[in-house]
Amino acid sequence: MTIGVYGLGRFGSFFSSVLKSGGERVIAYSRNEHTLPEGVEKAGEDEVLNADYLFFCVSISAFEEVLKRVAGKIGRNTVVLDTCSVKMYPSKWMEEYLPSHIYKIATHPMFGPDSGRNGVKGLPLVMCEISKKDERYEFIKSYFEHIGLKVLEMSARDHDAEAAYSQGVTHFVGRVLNEMGLKPTEIATSGYKSLMNIVDQTCNDPLQLFYDLQRYNPYAKEMRLTLQVAIEKILNRLAKEEDNR
Amino acid sequence: MTIGVYGLGRFGSFFSSVLKSGGERVIAYSRNEHTLPEGVEKAGEDEVLNADYLFFCVSISAFEEVLKRVAGKIGRNTVVLDTCSVKMYPSKWMEEYLPSHIYKIATHPMFGPDSGRNGVKGLPLVMCEISKKDERYEFIKSYFEHIGLKVLEMSARDHDAEAAYSQGVTHFVGRVLNEMGLKPTEIATSGYKSLMNIVDQTCNDPLQLFYDLQRYNPYAKEMRLTLQVAIEKILNRLAKEEDNR
Repeated sequence: MTIGVYGLGRFGSFFSSVLKSGGERVIAYSRNEHTLPEGVEKAGEDEVLNADYLFFCVSISAFEEVLKRVAGKIGRNTVVLDTCSVKMYPSKWMEEYLPSHIYKIATHPMFGPDSGRNGVKGLPLVMCEISKKDERYEFIKSYFEHIGLKVLEMSARDHDAEAAYSQGVTHFVGRVLNEMGLKPTEIATSGYKSLMNIVDQTCNDPLQLFYDLQRYNPYAKEMRLTLQVAIEKILNRLAKEEDNR
Repeated sequence: MTIGVYGLGRFGSFFSSVLKSGGERVIAYSRNEHTLPEGVEKAGEDEVLNADYLFFCVSISAFEEVLKRVAGKIGRNTVVLDTCSVKMYPSKWMEEYLPSHIYKIATHPMFGPDSGRNGVKGLPLVMCEISKKDERYEFIKSYFEHIGLKVLEMSARDHDAEAAYSQGVTHFVGRVLNEMGLKPTEIATSGYKSLMNIVDQTCNDPLQLFYDLQRYNPYAKEMRLTLQVAIEKILNRLAKEEDNR
């Protein structure tokens, strides 16, 4: 059994080491030069595209083009999985650009090199059915569980609706606070320290991930509007309190 | 030596137990019926106003009126300290309404019943000089340190300028996210869990504290404007990215 990882950016490199921790052979391909995590083998593009399980670890905004380009070179029996932080668009792209005989699964490992720094045991990974569930789906699900991940199964739509109001709002708030230029201070309350941690963690991820989370999640615009409305409400209430003084 | 605590709300009750942990006698007065923390003695208003050290633990918005009302009844040798989360207005009020012979110190214990739940060792407490420093100031400073607090000395202005962009922004973000109706979710990332903790912690404090932090800190309005400008910038950048697709 060989697991292929396509893309060795910040997330791909981390995720290939997580996959390797389950004991199977992991090979990885990247256009650019990258140091490989321990135990992960470097491989050519074709070899990775013909692995038994092929994980795409490219940015959401690059995924559509990458799929179009490599679709014809993917092995007939290779199971294709994405790892994008949104699920509706990537699922649609896999159905649109990959031949119908290729078995497809959408996944979202809800962690990264920062949150998974001290191990991934118990961290959530979402699986969305694209091809009808069979033993190929069950095998990789068991493998995730064997690694210690908590597998959650849901539709791509349910994922995006919930993620907009959890991961999406967190990254938005993190980028906004970073833009404000907030600094550590001696008089930090414990709440402010938590807030600074959120800024550090979200802004440590590539800026592209932030843009992609906001653009490619169909629920993100509504989330941002909800946030703006909430701010207006709070400001209005403050103004009213001021008048009542 | 007797320490008096005036006001036994959520914070006053907690802070009186912190003061008691240093070993001195602590007496407390409250208009309303309240259960007293272990070791803290119930006392009448006059008795508390004549303690050696008198801590006011009333809301910022109530402090001015309370001071006016009790100023004439405070003991001649009683050292008066406030514990408000902003420092410029309360310092001004103490100078304005208390006789000049009364020794005054402004303090801000930068923690509360939530953040101090597991002990207050190492947590910051800000002291601002009002009356010229002497042995009365040094005594209570040592007492705070004896309890385990980290005493930080600064001007009321410096405190408010820094607190607006730390405690102030944290409470504002917490209230806004609460207004959005965010819920815990199975697919929570670690960052989102931190965000939910901030909501819980800030919204567990009285709503009055939130309003007071925003209204009585002269730097809070600028902080809120800075936040709104940061949101506009991020939204504009998102829109530009969208156009460049």
